[in-house]
Amino acid sequence: MNHLYQLPLNGAGNPGQSNVTTPGSFANKNRVGTPWTFSSPDTPGMPAPSDKTAWDFLPDDWEVEILSDEDSHVESSSSPCLACQNSRVFTDSNGITRRVMPPVGFKPITQLEHARLGIITDQMIRVAEREGHLTPAQVRDEIAAGRMVIPANINHLQWKLDPMAIGRASKTKINANLGASPVSSDINEELEKVDWAVKFGADTLMDLSTGGDLNATRSAIVKHASTPVGTVPIYSMIIGKKIEDLDWPIIEAELHNQARQGVDYFTIHAGVLKEHLPFVRKRLIGIVSRGGSLLAKWMIHHNKQNPMYTHWEKICDILRQYDVTFSIGDGLRPGGLADATDQAQLAELVTLGELTERAWKRGVQVMIEGPGHVPLDQIEYNMKLQRTLCHGAPFYVLGPLVTDIFPGYDHITSCIGATNAAYHGASMLCYVTPKEHLGLPKKDDVKQGCIAYKIAAHAADIALGIPGSRERDDELTKARAALNWERHFELSFDPDTARAYHDEDLDVDTDFCAMCGHDWCSVRISKEILEFFSGKDEDSQRGKPVKSAALTPEQQEILAKRGVLSPDEIHKLANKTKKAVGADDGDKASCHSDYVDPDTAKKKQEEKLVTIGVGLKTNESVI
Amino acid sequence: MNHLYQLPLNGAGNPGQSNVTTPGSFANKNRVGTPWTFSSPDTPGMPAPSDKTAWDFLPDDWEVEILSDEDSHVESSSSPCLACQNSRVFTDSNGITRRVMPPVGFKPITQLEHARLGIITDQMIRVAEREGHLTPAQVRDEIAAGRMVIPANINHLQWKLDPMAIGRASKTKINANLGASPVSSDINEELEKVDWAVKFGADTLMDLSTGGDLNATRSAIVKHASTPVGTVPIYSMIIGKKIEDLDWPIIEAELHNQARQGVDYFTIHAGVLKEHLPFVRKRLIGIVSRGGSLLAKWMIHHNKQNPMYTHWEKICDILRQYDVTFSIGDGLRPGGLADATDQAQLAELVTLGELTERAWKRGVQVMIEGPGHVPLDQIEYNMKLQRTLCHGAPFYVLGPLVTDIFPGYDHITSCIGATNAAYHGASMLCYVTPKEHLGLPKKDDVKQGCIAYKIAAHAADIALGIPGSRERDDELTKARAALNWERHFELSFDPDTARAYHDEDLDVDTDFCAMCGHDWCSVRISKEILEFFSGKDEDSQRGKPVKSAALTPEQQEILAKRGVLSPDEIHKLANKTKKAVGADDGDKASCHSDYVDPDTAKKKQEEKLVTIGVGLKTNESVI
Repeated sequence: MNHLYQLPLNGAGNPGQSNVTTPGSFANKNRVGTPWTFSSPDTPGMPAPSDKTAWDFLPDDWEVEILSDEDSHVESSSSPCLACQNSRVFTDSNGITRRVMPPVGFKPITQLEHARLGIITDQMIRVAEREGHLTPAQVRDEIAAGRMVIPANINHLQWKLDPMAIGRASKTKINANLGASPVSSDINEELEKVDWAVKFGADTLMDLSTGGDLNATRSAIVKHASTPVGTVPIYSMIIGKKIEDLDWPIIEAELHNQARQGVDYFTIHAGVLKEHLPFVRKRLIGIVSRGGSLLAKWMIHHNKQNPMYTHWEKICDILRQYDVTFSIGDGLRPGGLADATDQAQLAELVTLGELTERAWKRGVQVMIEGPGHVPLDQIEYNMKLQRTLCHGAPFYVLGPLVTDIFPGYDHITSCIGATNAAYHGASMLCYVTPKEHLGLPKKDDVKQGCIAYKIAAHAADIALGIPGSRERDDELTKARAALNWERHFELSFDPDTARAYHDEDLDVDTDFCAMCGHDWCSVRISKEILEFFSGKDEDSQRGKPVKSAALTPEQQEILAKRGVLSPDEIHKLANKTKKAVGADDGDKASCHSDYVDPDTAKKKQEEKLVTIGVGLKTNESVI
Repeated sequence: MNHLYQLPLNGAGNPGQSNVTTPGSFANKNRVGTPWTFSSPDTPGMPAPSDKTAWDFLPDDWEVEILSDEDSHVESSSSPCLACQNSRVFTDSNGITRRVMPPVGFKPITQLEHARLGIITDQMIRVAEREGHLTPAQVRDEIAAGRMVIPANINHLQWKLDPMAIGRASKTKINANLGASPVSSDINEELEKVDWAVKFGADTLMDLSTGGDLNATRSAIVKHASTPVGTVPIYSMIIGKKIEDLDWPIIEAELHNQARQGVDYFTIHAGVLKEHLPFVRKRLIGIVSRGGSLLAKWMIHHNKQNPMYTHWEKICDILRQYDVTFSIGDGLRPGGLADATDQAQLAELVTLGELTERAWKRGVQVMIEGPGHVPLDQIEYNMKLQRTLCHGAPFYVLGPLVTDIFPGYDHITSCIGATNAAYHGASMLCYVTPKEHLGLPKKDDVKQGCIAYKIAAHAADIALGIPGSRERDDELTKARAALNWERHFELSFDPDTARAYHDEDLDVDTDFCAMCGHDWCSVRISKEILEFFSGKDEDSQRGKPVKSAALTPEQQEILAKRGVLSPDEIHKLANKTKKAVGADDGDKASCHSDYVDPDTAKKKQEEKLVTIGVGLKTNESVI
């Protein structure tokens, strides 16, 4: 019995509360200010981070000098007046002092340019407020290093944009794709979808409209959204045209147009090169990116290089004027496990690294898009290779799906990959809905996609040891231990679903639930054992068992869709306590007033279970 | 552009087809016959596998001798007649020759005992058939090493049991929990649930009944199930009694009873010791295992050691008589992230290792149960510590959940953990349904739980490089590339859901889908680019676009529950083509007969999208 086990504590610390028994995160120690920021320990064979950052890719007419301690006793200046001075000296949050010398008359526009000059913008301050574990100076420094972006078009900032950051030093973000189709959807519907996606946790939105009045829709979404909005401008460039007709004037005009409208980031598939196309020939499923396939067709037709690549510097200059962030597209992402991590994908990734360097030289913020479909064993490598080749620029990945044979469930197959991707280095996760590969997502698919991805992002933040990321989980565990159902629901990410599922079996808030029942509730039994009773947290205790409040319309709808209870039974749950607890029709009472004793509760449970059980096949599982 | 990237290929090879572009699995090389079998590369700090196996824990009256090459030119015998000989010499599939000497008159009963004597049983042969990558001799050798079990009660083998194996050398398995509740469910309902769980991929079932006629239910399930059936016998031991009254005669009688009935594995919480209980006091949520909490209460009441622990050898002797496999319970598994990998959990795991050794000494097959709720970063360590402490005995884990704040979605939070657990060493995954923590799972919850776990198990097998595990994925990718929808659905794990989701938007089998539509289909565009067109696989091609067949009742139900289409629209989909394709009401046509040209298909799509779009908020997302 004298076993020793060494815990692989790398020093990340405990991301939750202090009064817990878990030893804390096994991730690497928090090293914000370095390429490791929050990171997973490397499995053998993983590429080391790049030894370069955005500081190594300044515009050619800039100079920067690292000052020694003696030289650096110059006052750090925070005045934005740059026209009147040629150099700025400031010390970053890691204690490195730089003298930065932009050309005379230079005026910063982008967050990256401000950061390079040591300026902490209002947006950086807001980001630090939203990321409790970061200071404004750390946000600035991560942006200067190219490891973080704040997608905030200067025009969108005039509307409702609440600035947020994407980068591995901040919490993991999720993106939801929206957009009108060629023949349906009006603008108000799109705005409803924006609200719905944000309600379920979307941190950014992409308007991928391919139909309707694209301009009007885009403009309305940007004006309405408090999150950054991204687009794939090539869609608008070819509406009503053939891809073969695409040329620089069309590209230029559309980029200007969308940037002016306030779009915060652009997906541009500049990394698909002519010389990569032969690698695609051997694939099982060729090119699955719309932008990638369109540009491939253009290149083959014209026998010329990708115009997005050849015009890259001009594109950068347009984006810089509005501080539009790049989301450099992965046109050659794999469309099946069979094509993952292959030559086509990796060759493009090398090009994405080159495009990152070139964009940074023009002062533009950059994130990189990633796959797609990747077996679980290859995910860490994909993340860490991107970190190397793109010098730490934030990685924005689509899933990846870890198996191909579950269409209808790809929000799950992909959120498994997404969780691992975020743990190993991805900064933003583009959701996949249950309708992926099959059709257009409906409203409920958007919800399911958002929630699956919120799970992925949150689980990765906990795993990475981001301070405070587990506190709500710990609070919910305390409520669970105290069998305090109301608080349990309140702390749930989707309280309507949690309460509807609970009330389906047992509309009494007892000190057990219908999963195990009174006699078999381990938590209740634990509470009986005074020597180490659970639910000892005073704040989480509640009084005696209480009757559950009436179901809200949302909860009724959830139960109706499950198809377990009859409309009649749902109606009863929606009305039963309205008078007793002061709930009006359709409203939820904010508190309970009538207590139920444990015996009544137990009896009640048995009645309910009998009623529901008849012909409805309850109780399939008890764990 | 002269970048080099070293792929971390550890030699696992490609688990799918050979004509693909992915470099293959990054997992460790297949080393069946060693503690690594199929395994993930170790992150630094992971405990090495134990240098012991079940060969090191033979019964005291057995002797074993490893023979040198010269000594070993003795014929390997496969005769089961052991009473007539005192020693057996055989060479295992790794070329090691052993002389095994059981006591005179010894007759093997368990698969472990047979394996130790070099005997390949019918069950091992069947397992090798089901695990295409293993030979019967390898199955035998893994069992002899204690790294694999075949839960096959000799009495269940007289009914319909189709032998299967659990171990890291075989494919990952999933378990579904069923069982009658105190007040509902009859036996026929339970048997329906058995069929339902098996349909959606359950490899084993646990009957966790706590109500109804427990004996009759259990017996009926065992007789009906082709999968192994497990139970937690303590439930039956205390029905109608107080836990304090539990004593050895009760334990003994119930174990004999259930073993006689043909139960294939028993969860017994013998690892919760009196001395572990103080560690529980500091936890946020104490003990969440029902068996664990009951035995803790017993120990505190009597101030005595866990009776399952003190009577362990006697328990082993009962199990051996019927070849019931142990699933040694983790009574102190964490009930929240806050309690993961803590002293209570690890102290119990050490005891589980001791119990494993003691069970192997009595000839009983062993698997070990594991957590529960574990942050992603701690999963690999948990798996590899178990591998060390329990000398490679198969690990059977519940999830684990990687976050606590998503009740209603714990099939997802836990299947993320389960995928990682299987990749890092777990052999069987116990499902968690969406109702976990909230109430009793309904039939659809069982389905959702099974599918989420099938995803986890399958994704892990692919990641581990188990030969052939990705072939169906590759086939589906080919069908997808060829835009062959019928084959796409056939290869889907849940074809009804896949086709219902597809037909919801577009009841025409076109060369695109409603997600992107005709003009925006990257796969279609890829096919236009002759130079590297997708869908080049001849077998996957189909003719022109065809009308989709009528919806089956299952597909109608799926659409009805989604609540997107009106009953009228669903009815239309269910009937529209019945005459044209020869589908009777409710039956699905086996093939199509009326072709639709691409223009009609496109027009049709637009019509459908318009119709569905009105007021129904389609098209939320396009990726």
